[in-house]
Amino acid sequence: MKVIYMDNSATTPLCDAARQAMTEAFELYGNPSSLHLLGVRSERIVNKARGILLGALGDTAKGRVYFTGSGTEANNLALFGTAYAKASNVGKRIVITDSEHPSVSACASELEKRGFQIVRIPTENGIVNEEALLSSVDGKTFLVSIMTVNNESGAEYDIKRLVKLCKRVNPDVIFHTDATQAFMKAQVNAKLTGADLITVSGHKIGAPKGIGALYVSGDVIKRKAISPHIFGGGQEGGIRSGTENVIHIHAFGAAVEYGMKNYSENLKNTEILRKYAVDALSRLDGVRINTPKSERVSPSIISVTVNGIKSEVMLHHLESEGIYVSSGSACSSHHKGVSQAMTAFGLTEDESDSTIRISLGYNNTFDECDALVSSLKSGIATLATKVR
Amino acid sequence: MKVIYMDNSATTPLCDAARQAMTEAFELYGNPSSLHLLGVRSERIVNKARGILLGALGDTAKGRVYFTGSGTEANNLALFGTAYAKASNVGKRIVITDSEHPSVSACASELEKRGFQIVRIPTENGIVNEEALLSSVDGKTFLVSIMTVNNESGAEYDIKRLVKLCKRVNPDVIFHTDATQAFMKAQVNAKLTGADLITVSGHKIGAPKGIGALYVSGDVIKRKAISPHIFGGGQEGGIRSGTENVIHIHAFGAAVEYGMKNYSENLKNTEILRKYAVDALSRLDGVRINTPKSERVSPSIISVTVNGIKSEVMLHHLESEGIYVSSGSACSSHHKGVSQAMTAFGLTEDESDSTIRISLGYNNTFDECDALVSSLKSGIATLATKVR
Repeated sequence: MKVIYMDNSATTPLCDAARQAMTEAFELYGNPSSLHLLGVRSERIVNKARGILLGALGDTAKGRVYFTGSGTEANNLALFGTAYAKASNVGKRIVITDSEHPSVSACASELEKRGFQIVRIPTENGIVNEEALLSSVDGKTFLVSIMTVNNESGAEYDIKRLVKLCKRVNPDVIFHTDATQAFMKAQVNAKLTGADLITVSGHKIGAPKGIGALYVSGDVIKRKAISPHIFGGGQEGGIRSGTENVIHIHAFGAAVEYGMKNYSENLKNTEILRKYAVDALSRLDGVRINTPKSERVSPSIISVTVNGIKSEVMLHHLESEGIYVSSGSACSSHHKGVSQAMTAFGLTEDESDSTIRISLGYNNTFDECDALVSSLKSGIATLATKVR
Repeated sequence: MKVIYMDNSATTPLCDAARQAMTEAFELYGNPSSLHLLGVRSERIVNKARGILLGALGDTAKGRVYFTGSGTEANNLALFGTAYAKASNVGKRIVITDSEHPSVSACASELEKRGFQIVRIPTENGIVNEEALLSSVDGKTFLVSIMTVNNESGAEYDIKRLVKLCKRVNPDVIFHTDATQAFMKAQVNAKLTGADLITVSGHKIGAPKGIGALYVSGDVIKRKAISPHIFGGGQEGGIRSGTENVIHIHAFGAAVEYGMKNYSENLKNTEILRKYAVDALSRLDGVRINTPKSERVSPSIISVTVNGIKSEVMLHHLESEGIYVSSGSACSSHHKGVSQAMTAFGLTEDESDSTIRISLGYNNTFDECDALVSSLKSGIATLATKVR
């Protein structure tokens, strides 16, 4: 059966550029820390990819990209790294939203146990409550962490505006955005938004799983406002120890380079496809589109609640026809319990439990969207009675 | 020029089994956390590799292997993970040696800043001072961390004996060993040694850089004596969040499987080669072999001090003849300053500064050893006067 893959927010297939880069890097086995030529060659490959990412993230110069083992680790570095940096002793407050990815929210909860104060801002209907944000950020707040695109609802936040709001109250506050679901799909740009820390992940954009990065602004580096989360031999400018994953870093660079070249075209195609799918889905009885109707929305993610049919049941129905989507986000699929993000969005427990996430890639086609709609329709007709 | 690679403790070339596994896994793009078939397939690959590692580490059942982004991260998980676990509230003391790899010693120093008490046991001449160890481990000690093989001197410690000594004083103490330089080259076995936590790394045994693992005993899991160091979506049984690096995990499993099959033969070959090289090196004027003469020694590492010639100068001389070795360990090569491990071993600052590390792989040959000795000899003849 033909695979119709619409789970691109969970992970993406390797793009050709990444695949080719990995095969190339099979031969580059020197340790980037070694002083001899084999080491230097690997180091060059790592730094080339670093430059590509810096460029793609719109660095204003003097910022740096630190490679990590995942987007999750980059988020951990952003939260723990700023929390434990000396400069942070001025305050103990971190402001996040109530619908961050677990790799931010779980770090925040852990820091809360260790004596930090965490404020969680509402994001009902996929909108950051700015009043709550403004009344939460104070002189003791050293970090604000707000994702660019929500991984479940697809809501996109205006990071540039939020940075400005926060810095007006406290110019020293560090603004972190988890751009895992936004990178190469929406505006993720340090220069344009003013974000100090930006998390990106390889496997959401055609690079392999197991590689991520944190962009850190020159200002944060200069202020020594970030410390390592993984300690050791001092790789990555001392901020992230551990021998560099040369193969994956090379692939990450290649995927970003490819993606940047084709950014506008891929984005346009995905947006057209998304509108097409959303239109068709909205005409289905018993289906509600959760993703906000505003302009600020992920070009990829469509969150859909199907009344009365548990998401796992629908997922397996679609799968039986070769269509792959997600029940909630992949990283929480194995966990029982209701999605925090969708509850924050405003869904009831029952609605959240009947919500699937469709996430398009630029390789998807109109025909595949038709197949999805048709399979959802047949699912609604046959499954609803069984479950209720 | 033919490459004679004798820097296998810094990192190893990809073995054929790992290379093949990676190419296979290029097609396995599902997220292991996804509930659909593509996810399940990736999950199976991850768990297959987990089983191979558990087997190779001699698990007594109920232990578990958690994949990490590096050996460094596994060491961080061992130290921070036990430090922040609830069960650790009984005490605040960690005992390590004075020559651990920075990925252990830097974690210990960070924990010291955070209020933990760190005791560092001497290892002069590559021997763990047992008297110091016994007088340091007390009822408040929750963790002892002693590496299996020292990455610079090549000294191997009797982990089985050390575990027994420590547990006699405090049966609840968790014993961690960083076996990065020992795995597949010396006895690294949870069942035989009684170690509770074992760190291993992929790129030291023919798998790619960017994958490591921590073995955790069933007892530690049952006691909930380890908590995550990277928080998020709850992958790896909640102990290490972040989407699994499926490609590298598959390669790690394949490299271990291959290595276990050929373990005895590879080990025998490397040991013979090492003896051959050590014999020839000892006959060179101005060369001193640091690695202990005891039976307990890495089959791979030979630490050599060349009087009056800075290690970096000798490294580049050897490199000019196609021979690749290390000045100290790769992970500290980019850092100025004297090697902590070699100072602990008993070398003066000058001696340490003139010490190179030769680390053999099972692919090295007698001819290559001859070439090394000959190149060292010519280096000693031509370089000594230049430098002094």
